[in-house]
Amino acid sequence: MAGEASSGTFLQGLERGLAVIRAFSAQAPSLTLSEVARDVGLTPATARRILLTLEQLGYVRTDGRQFSLTPRVLALGWAYLSSLDLGELAGPYMEELSAATRESCSIATLDLPDIVYVARVPTSRIMTVALGVGARLPAYPTSMGRVLLAGLSSSELDVYLANMQTEQLTPRTVTSASLLRAAVDQARADGYALVDQELELGLRSLAAPIYNSRGRVVAALNVSAHASRSTPESLCEEVLPHVLCAADHITTALKHRGHL
Amino acid sequence: MAGEASSGTFLQGLERGLAVIRAFSAQAPSLTLSEVARDVGLTPATARRILLTLEQLGYVRTDGRQFSLTPRVLALGWAYLSSLDLGELAGPYMEELSAATRESCSIATLDLPDIVYVARVPTSRIMTVALGVGARLPAYPTSMGRVLLAGLSSSELDVYLANMQTEQLTPRTVTSASLLRAAVDQARADGYALVDQELELGLRSLAAPIYNSRGRVVAALNVSAHASRSTPESLCEEVLPHVLCAADHITTALKHRGHL
Repeated sequence: MAGEASSGTFLQGLERGLAVIRAFSAQAPSLTLSEVARDVGLTPATARRILLTLEQLGYVRTDGRQFSLTPRVLALGWAYLSSLDLGELAGPYMEELSAATRESCSIATLDLPDIVYVARVPTSRIMTVALGVGARLPAYPTSMGRVLLAGLSSSELDVYLANMQTEQLTPRTVTSASLLRAAVDQARADGYALVDQELELGLRSLAAPIYNSRGRVVAALNVSAHASRSTPESLCEEVLPHVLCAADHITTALKHRGHL
Repeated sequence: MAGEASSGTFLQGLERGLAVIRAFSAQAPSLTLSEVARDVGLTPATARRILLTLEQLGYVRTDGRQFSLTPRVLALGWAYLSSLDLGELAGPYMEELSAATRESCSIATLDLPDIVYVARVPTSRIMTVALGVGARLPAYPTSMGRVLLAGLSSSELDVYLANMQTEQLTPRTVTSASLLRAAVDQARADGYALVDQELELGLRSLAAPIYNSRGRVVAALNVSAHASRSTPESLCEEVLPHVLCAADHITTALKHRGHL
């Protein structure tokens, strides 16, 4: 433990280092030392030590003034995705689902208060990087969020509902805790969730849960469709059976694989 | 700096924490404390502090015995993608390239000794998650690797060639440092690289460099094709002009955008 002290068991240097990595974004692809210090809430001396450590490890590069992340950072997210291994396992079923419904489909997991995309099959060949793997959306106005919230324990759901920050994203967005709880209960009872233009006008989405071998909801599978190409009724009649079937296949494949 | 000491400016806790995240993989989706300690080369006490810190920050979860990563980890790796922004910028050109050549195309950057995929347009709708964003391949037997190596300074290339670990992946794989240097020099002179079944029998690939506004190679664009559908000659005649044109468009778009 030479040269490594901290309060209790918590490693503050690690926390701060991860916060520095997260400070970079599309809006801030490169940052100066003082910008990093300000954004993360560190002294310049601490920010400097973290940036130099990250540079030495190959996660950050600098021209002397501006710092930016390197592709090595992808190895961190990749560790999660490959350990989840859901994309590869679910891929063929998602392909089938997308072909059968002619709509794009996705898998997301929960990282409260958000859902995080872990696999996606777009309909057209247009690359929608904006909703690619790793993209995040708030849980409350999305169909995948609803079925994932339905998989929480009741105390976890209580905490989420008590603390959630909602926004009236469209005139249809459910923002009250009691109505959202009812929608989540409904999703649990139904085994799926339909969300009709609550995230974005013109977008309807249908999701079903994926379970691990212990019966816990670990992910959600969805199909989303332009409102112009669907009605809630047509989604339930024509798309829902395919979604439920694919989610079931993925659940079975997960069981056979064992982990998660 | 309360509670945070280290040797010089280097934060060992940060280095070790990142190494622990990378210890998880498809082969090891969950690990015990002692497995983490062994794999990363830490004492159990240090491994424990790191895992508890990561758990407290939400990057790791545990059932008390087994530890695994959470989707929050994607907030680290994928912050890079959004900051690089290459996928989004290059997307339309990659779509055109893939449509014109009817083959899948990819963009990768260099993280020695590997290349890392940062964007991909598959030909068919079959999701090849195994080569999705974040996937890594060794640089030496790949066309993108060759053009990226050609963009290194001569001293960086010397270090790589002196230390590279090669494997005879196919009967055609170039594994000697002198032949590889010749291939990299050729790629630099030609402005593209063609690799013929060195990574995998049946796979040919053609790559061209993408430059930033300072003329530095920052990424490579490739098209890969099954050997049954192409000859090296047909690739150079029919596919190469499209690859060079798309790489040129992406380079121009990067210049206009400014950063990188």
